[in-house]
Amino acid sequence: MSGNATSGIVMPEPNADVIARRAEIVAAMRAIVPGEGVIDAVNEMRPFETDGLTAYKQLPLAVVLPSTTEQVSRILAYCHRNGIRVVPRGAGTGLSGGALPLADAILLGMGKFNRILDIDFDNRTVTAQPGVTNLGITTAVAHAGFYYAPDPSSQIACTIGGNVAENSGGVHCLKYGLTTNNVMGVELVLITGEVMRIGGKHLDSGGLDLLGILVGSEGLLGVVTEVTVRILKKPETARAVLVGFPSSEAAGECVARIIGAGIIPGGMEMMDRLAIHAAEAFVKVGYPLDVEALLIVELDGPEAEVHHLIERVAQIASELGCITLRASNSEEERAAFWAGRKAAFPAVGRISPDYLCMDGTIPRKALPLVLARMEELARQHGLQCANVFHAGDGNLHPLILYDASKPGELEAAERFGADILLLCVEVGGVLTGEHGVGIEKRDLMPSMFDETDLAHQQRLKCAFDPDSLLNPGKVFPQLHRCAELGRMHVSRGQLPFPNIPRF
Amino acid sequence: MSGNATSGIVMPEPNADVIARRAEIVAAMRAIVPGEGVIDAVNEMRPFETDGLTAYKQLPLAVVLPSTTEQVSRILAYCHRNGIRVVPRGAGTGLSGGALPLADAILLGMGKFNRILDIDFDNRTVTAQPGVTNLGITTAVAHAGFYYAPDPSSQIACTIGGNVAENSGGVHCLKYGLTTNNVMGVELVLITGEVMRIGGKHLDSGGLDLLGILVGSEGLLGVVTEVTVRILKKPETARAVLVGFPSSEAAGECVARIIGAGIIPGGMEMMDRLAIHAAEAFVKVGYPLDVEALLIVELDGPEAEVHHLIERVAQIASELGCITLRASNSEEERAAFWAGRKAAFPAVGRISPDYLCMDGTIPRKALPLVLARMEELARQHGLQCANVFHAGDGNLHPLILYDASKPGELEAAERFGADILLLCVEVGGVLTGEHGVGIEKRDLMPSMFDETDLAHQQRLKCAFDPDSLLNPGKVFPQLHRCAELGRMHVSRGQLPFPNIPRF
Repeated sequence: MSGNATSGIVMPEPNADVIARRAEIVAAMRAIVPGEGVIDAVNEMRPFETDGLTAYKQLPLAVVLPSTTEQVSRILAYCHRNGIRVVPRGAGTGLSGGALPLADAILLGMGKFNRILDIDFDNRTVTAQPGVTNLGITTAVAHAGFYYAPDPSSQIACTIGGNVAENSGGVHCLKYGLTTNNVMGVELVLITGEVMRIGGKHLDSGGLDLLGILVGSEGLLGVVTEVTVRILKKPETARAVLVGFPSSEAAGECVARIIGAGIIPGGMEMMDRLAIHAAEAFVKVGYPLDVEALLIVELDGPEAEVHHLIERVAQIASELGCITLRASNSEEERAAFWAGRKAAFPAVGRISPDYLCMDGTIPRKALPLVLARMEELARQHGLQCANVFHAGDGNLHPLILYDASKPGELEAAERFGADILLLCVEVGGVLTGEHGVGIEKRDLMPSMFDETDLAHQQRLKCAFDPDSLLNPGKVFPQLHRCAELGRMHVSRGQLPFPNIPRF
Repeated sequence: MSGNATSGIVMPEPNADVIARRAEIVAAMRAIVPGEGVIDAVNEMRPFETDGLTAYKQLPLAVVLPSTTEQVSRILAYCHRNGIRVVPRGAGTGLSGGALPLADAILLGMGKFNRILDIDFDNRTVTAQPGVTNLGITTAVAHAGFYYAPDPSSQIACTIGGNVAENSGGVHCLKYGLTTNNVMGVELVLITGEVMRIGGKHLDSGGLDLLGILVGSEGLLGVVTEVTVRILKKPETARAVLVGFPSSEAAGECVARIIGAGIIPGGMEMMDRLAIHAAEAFVKVGYPLDVEALLIVELDGPEAEVHHLIERVAQIASELGCITLRASNSEEERAAFWAGRKAAFPAVGRISPDYLCMDGTIPRKALPLVLARMEELARQHGLQCANVFHAGDGNLHPLILYDASKPGELEAAERFGADILLLCVEVGGVLTGEHGVGIEKRDLMPSMFDETDLAHQQRLKCAFDPDSLLNPGKVFPQLHRCAELGRMHVSRGQLPFPNIPRF
């Protein structure tokens, strides 16, 4: 494998022998998953040929839709014995191409795992099958005043299994953490067919903590068939404050000072001029149009606390010369403040034929610098960029506007996107925030990890999947054979200090 | 290796060849660590022969006290090339024997790594060397109103490196998480001498998340030479409420209802009659002596919120028939409420010649059942047990009273302790809360993990340390050679569903 993100992604060579044995493999799958759970007709496989990174498409060898852990175990055991690759898939809403099929691989769709298995208010946990939607978990416990905190924009459609694979975030992650901070246990099927339980309804386990490495592993380590998450009591009150600034720098400084003051908002989002105008034109919620940057700061908790915090946020914003400052006075108004932000992606879609949604993270204090550099990059690449981001945790979502019908514009947008991500790494940030690496950022991984890092991550991958059958071609720019991942033999005087910048 | 926790811990057979080469190895260490950083005289090695699990003692091959990452890299590379075992050690306050030396192993003391490297208020992080004490981190940022949340009782002495190794907790972990929830990045030296950076000043990374598996790995995966932690703003107000109940069941129910009401106290501790009386006799802080169980509930946050929460806690406690209810009205009073709890271990030490401090975790709702069963166990084993625990997160610390000078009492106490831990597992909890597995709970691991689990954890261990040179004999009851950890080959009809109880 070679290539880079700007000149097309090179995927692993398909195994011609496996493709030749397709009929036999499909028959074996049908013996495991009866009825309509195996799809091999081309027109019926079309809905599965891409995920949220729609620029890339590939038909799989076959689509298999199991509905029990036992079926998953049998499928993986068969694939393991026969050297067949497997690409797991949740709802297919992922934005980094992690569920892109391979021509010689089973696409293992987990959509039939759609039951909630256990609701335990005493321990504040829900156990669900991986195909339950993110919002479905909140819906199941809302009657008792509880909710599940991580809330990706796609939460109506995306599944908790996909959230585990991608370590998904959302606007509330600043205060309540990413998926990895809210998952307490999983049932996992290894490529051998072995079934494991990792974690449970408690904070610590004993032995090695496999849960951390599993969350965000993008389908490379195993297939999750059950997930236990922590649920939270809905805050007594939540109010949102709209704060408009004459410059992005002032808005960035406001974010830093709010955090510096020890306030952790439930959400703290930032939109730039282009995003504000696009959103307002689309949903008409009354965003100010005379500002360069808009913050939406949500404070949640007991009423008395929220009132107090709004006053402190208002004071900080005023000191920094905000132009507009409005706190929501009803649930309707709060919802309206968020409606524009939540519609920002489709709103940008209305003003541009196509857009590329990037995802990178920077240290909060680098925000003004990065915003200035992104403006320069936009000029260099001759493309516009709307900025919408989780300002509180430094997670940027630049939306690069382009027109796929103009030759070369997709490639230019991809180059611009790669430059933004490299900028994130340069200032001490990272390539991802919540969308995963997938194929989109795969070839940028060496900008962030050196050979020691990447080899060591792959040694752990090999401990799960020694034949690299699970989702190959994703995450790692170069997949080494496990036997080749020998160690450097270090002698004195030849010391392996990688040239990693201090974070 | 064989044996179990009640009949003595069997450690790995010492390598006689290594012991025979001791002089040569010590000389090699002196070439790497000059001056007084290598200790080989028996009387000077005595302070290192045990850790907080003082019933077990062993002199190491030699003690080596490096002060730079480069020295650690050279030491480990030498040990790797020469097949020499290594036992890393922080402050030696660990309670599960994780730092117990081996006769054929270098004891690698990290105490000279005692500098704070970076304080970053904008990103709310501190980067410290591993030998900095837990409290030292808070001290370094207290002037600006910040602190580091996890607070083990030993926080004056224990080091952040040791906290990472054990995934240490403390009274504030209910609200603020264990070490694993507060560590953002580490510098790690592998057994080969390779140096890696994992994580940083951001929530997510990309690629596989190695941080989760590293925290709590008890020195089995590598040596941490730098740690970046999240710091928090000190809450505006903190007040503690003392609530006394006529029964442990009522106190347990109160804990469940407070959590069920969506209140997450900064700390929620419970003491039983024996512990209350011992603590009051020792520090005289005015604990009620006519109650069977005492809760200390700390509420923190903005003043308005704390006032509101205290009222709600008082209401819940009253409904459950509490006998005493007192909220602190000053910092002095709050400190006094905690003084008894913090002195509980030494207080129990005054009423019994010896005690064994256990550490297990249960689902909160199992508390009344477990308390009742523990009383039965105390009768069966003929020993008294004082209960002090982090009630909010279900983390029990039974203190088993015994007299080591009476033949058989230590063994009886160990059997009692093992029965308590097995009870924790039986009700859906786990063997540890915050003290690690070490040697203390090593032989109980199969009660919680089946062969699939243990083999898979060891596959990950092998990805870091294929020759099992790092801290062997700890955590895993049986350490397999990495080459022997082949996979089960699963055929259809012979399915590997382990008989794990639903959590």
